[in-house]
Amino acid sequence: MIQAQRPPASDPIDLTQPMGSGMPAYPADPPVEIVAYRSHDTDGYAATQLRLGTHSGTHVDAPSHFLVDGATIDSYPPARFFGAGVVLDLRAGPRELDEATMRAAATAAGGLETGDFAVLWTGWDTHFGDDFMVEHPFLTPDAAQVLLETGVSLVATDALNVDSSEGGEFPVHPLLLGADVLIVENLRGLAALGSGRAFFAFVPLRLKGLDGSPIRALSWKV
Amino acid sequence: MIQAQRPPASDPIDLTQPMGSGMPAYPADPPVEIVAYRSHDTDGYAATQLRLGTHSGTHVDAPSHFLVDGATIDSYPPARFFGAGVVLDLRAGPRELDEATMRAAATAAGGLETGDFAVLWTGWDTHFGDDFMVEHPFLTPDAAQVLLETGVSLVATDALNVDSSEGGEFPVHPLLLGADVLIVENLRGLAALGSGRAFFAFVPLRLKGLDGSPIRALSWKV
Repeated sequence: MIQAQRPPASDPIDLTQPMGSGMPAYPADPPVEIVAYRSHDTDGYAATQLRLGTHSGTHVDAPSHFLVDGATIDSYPPARFFGAGVVLDLRAGPRELDEATMRAAATAAGGLETGDFAVLWTGWDTHFGDDFMVEHPFLTPDAAQVLLETGVSLVATDALNVDSSEGGEFPVHPLLLGADVLIVENLRGLAALGSGRAFFAFVPLRLKGLDGSPIRALSWKV
Repeated sequence: MIQAQRPPASDPIDLTQPMGSGMPAYPADPPVEIVAYRSHDTDGYAATQLRLGTHSGTHVDAPSHFLVDGATIDSYPPARFFGAGVVLDLRAGPRELDEATMRAAATAAGGLETGDFAVLWTGWDTHFGDDFMVEHPFLTPDAAQVLLETGVSLVATDALNVDSSEGGEFPVHPLLLGADVLIVENLRGLAALGSGRAFFAFVPLRLKGLDGSPIRALSWKV
């Protein structure tokens, strides 16, 4: 579903993890490296090479991340990355976010509507880069099914991963991506929004044929 | 100036050059390289390393690109990258976009207002990657001064550079950046907007302390 919606006329709140050399990363990913290749002293101007992953920092997953013939990130019209949605307060756990937890959180936030972005507020952004980073809350397949039933167009989390990052299994990724529901990971700062409805822009680069992209993640109170 | 404005409720038009391995680049820049590091067959999922420059493809320049103590791209609030502006039709030349040309184009487009994004429509995006790419129209310092007088907050072009790309001199970059006017280069597809007023989002990554960033460049008819 394409959402031809627009943000409120207030300043956006930045939900993006700052990117820099050695920033925290998913354990299997190459590190982010920032390399200066031009300098004011030598060249009269500064310029920099970025070595990033498609899943570095705050990013979006396209279906081709998990599905062999899945859609790539450049196949989506830009309107797909702008939309209204709901912040679901899941900070009280449990760590396995199951069906009952998801239904209760959706009800508490005022309900989910077709096309909404479902934004999981686990509070785990406070562990970005610490020893507990990979022990984050994650969705069970049944909980993902609850989100699919409501017809959401995108699921975002402030943790590293919508699946567990410890077992090497990823059941939720293909469930969501296979239903053409995009995934955003590593948001930060959802406390500035709080639970309930908001407007979001999760803006990727225009990367040809790729499985995802770092994004600028912005939000507006509604 | 921060513009707390919002786009119309229509679908955005994409003004971004698609990014991929071997895409056209400014002659002195390292090439864009896209390297797969995970695959469906071996790992169960695809993931990719990106080697980009801060000035690859469609991008924004921060003051620190040219000024030793200039502001870096992460120092701007996100609202700075959203704004109303004017597409100036400069396709009829001359190649040296001088003061008279700039005044005539601004008048023809209905005038520029304080805080506007000034978007130079040279038509040179059609030469992106061909033998004429570097022979693009560029601003003279006097023409840049016309834009500064009107109080624009950002100058964008669909050419490679607001300065000439042939002489190794960059007089316009420090003029604009020194006045805290951001620069966007390598837009494409301004014909879909036409001349006159429009709304723009030039959305960079959140790169810590850097001189610029690749962007997603979007626009809306108003």
